Amino acid sequence: MSRIVTVGAAQMGPIQRAHSRREVVARMVELMREAASHRCDLVVFPELTLTTFFPRWWMEDQAEIDAFFEREMPSNETAPLFTEAKRLGIGFSLGYAELTPEGRRFNTAILVNKSAEIVGKYRKIHLPGHAGHEPWRAFQHLEKRYFEVGDLSWGTWNAFGGAMGMMICNDRRWPESYRVMGLQSVEMILLGYNTPRHNPPAPDHDRLSEFHNQLVMQAGAYQNGTWVVGVAKAGVEEGCEMIGGSSIIAPTGEVIGQALTQDDELVVARCDLDLTKSYKATTFNFDMHRQPDQYRRIVEQRGAVKAGG
Amino acid sequence: MSRIVTVGAAQMGPIQRAHSRREVVARMVELMREAASHRCDLVVFPELTLTTFFPRWWMEDQAEIDAFFEREMPSNETAPLFTEAKRLGIGFSLGYAELTPEGRRFNTAILVNKSAEIVGKYRKIHLPGHAGHEPWRAFQHLEKRYFEVGDLSWGTWNAFGGAMGMMICNDRRWPESYRVMGLQSVEMILLGYNTPRHNPPAPDHDRLSEFHNQLVMQAGAYQNGTWVVGVAKAGVEEGCEMIGGSSIIAPTGEVIGQALTQDDELVVARCDLDLTKSYKATTFNFDMHRQPDQYRRIVEQRGAVKAGG
Repeated sequence: MSRIVTVGAAQMGPIQRAHSRREVVARMVELMREAASHRCDLVVFPELTLTTFFPRWWMEDQAEIDAFFEREMPSNETAPLFTEAKRLGIGFSLGYAELTPEGRRFNTAILVNKSAEIVGKYRKIHLPGHAGHEPWRAFQHLEKRYFEVGDLSWGTWNAFGGAMGMMICNDRRWPESYRVMGLQSVEMILLGYNTPRHNPPAPDHDRLSEFHNQLVMQAGAYQNGTWVVGVAKAGVEEGCEMIGGSSIIAPTGEVIGQALTQDDELVVARCDLDLTKSYKATTFNFDMHRQPDQYRRIVEQRGAVKAGG
Repeated sequence: MSRIVTVGAAQMGPIQRAHSRREVVARMVELMREAASHRCDLVVFPELTLTTFFPRWWMEDQAEIDAFFEREMPSNETAPLFTEAKRLGIGFSLGYAELTPEGRRFNTAILVNKSAEIVGKYRKIHLPGHAGHEPWRAFQHLEKRYFEVGDLSWGTWNAFGGAMGMMICNDRRWPESYRVMGLQSVEMILLGYNTPRHNPPAPDHDRLSEFHNQLVMQAGAYQNGTWVVGVAKAGVEEGCEMIGGSSIIAPTGEVIGQALTQDDELVVARCDLDLTKSYKATTFNFDMHRQPDQYRRIVEQRGAVKAGG
């Protein structure tokens, strides 16, 4: 017996500011149809899929900012995704900027089942970048300005025959993100990202962008015995190069599917959820091997203290 | 200005049961002299360096078990290590089975400075394997029988011009181990391991032993902006093959030194502790980016709960 979920990692090429949601949704529908033609159960889109990665700009006009946000999901503009998914009988995951009725703003991802019902929602916890204007940078990374820290924790959902989880972009660099889901028996983590190659405060890291991207996802997969599907918005957006490298990673830690372009590109893999079992039962049998009393510093402390203290 | 610590990773080939501590210490002294000839500041030996990896056997006779333990450090048999280190002006790290005056048994590592003074001690927290006899295995892995869980937490020590930390073997697979030290500003983690290629409960993982070994150390290094020096006891010990692959890993996550044999082998690298700074100040600026409130499950829960709960 196997529990195969066929996944399409739907990398998106650049989305410029001039591109309308209608144009973007049309590209997504095309990728969704390709995925369905390969009998995918699920197609995974990137973080903040619907617009250009707007945190690269300092903006003060709230109306200008809010133009990048969704007030409802689905909306008139995004409804075709849901309609087409239902028609095709395919699930999907989608990242978008969420403006709630209470006026709160989050960097959000949803999981949608094959009946086009939203069955899971996650709001990004590890917001990278900065909150204030830093004009010395070639471009800004203002997620701490435009979003609140997510308030839904990391969950898992019984869907697609397994335990599905979501994280977003920078979450993937933090082992805590995976572990909180591992402790909820996650079998497949869906994550989208927008990762500029250039990191203005640390340009010496730029040559390693793709390596770091895969390293953290591979380690998170292995250390929690879970599939990880990482999907990029890639290519040159408004002059800013973003890495591709969308990857499907097995619970072994091995990359078994990978995008080769910086454009719209579908990567398909048959993912057997039962491959998670031997890791969860042996090396990473948490109940047998974890020592939570020894981990207290992880929650009792935010920043680092000096050595030898 | 740089803060270079030149490290020798002193991989050890197999140590059979018939080998005396005197023989083993002579091999260690030889590696130490080689390291000193390359102007190493520090030489790192494996876990349980002084004897064969005895947890592979079920033993009931406490005297037989205790023959593998050290009652004092240094002892008559290990004193030459300290004498030679002092003469050469080189520090070292050493793993051994510790039997305390109170009769407690730990899998222990010590850090010894260039004056041959023990400046740090760590007792292994993540004991792998099992506690009861499992005759169906080709060999046992009875660390949970022969050792208590370490009671000293993970610390950091100001030594060798930086913040040094230690972990042991299976600790390296658990991101919590690195993080607890990262939260204490660790700049270089020393770790020894004895890792049989064959994992009896999960033989399908065997082909990935070296990959998993490096993956977890690379991720731990990057995610905490620290050097990691991982040192194997390698080769065929009493019919049991143990992986080599001793590695020196930079805060970038890159492997910059690696053993190529399964024998006694010294790997030398010049490690600039200042390379940790840009990671700790930017992507992994914990104080800026961590969200400890969201990590509570990591300490409040030991085993995994069901998904969707």
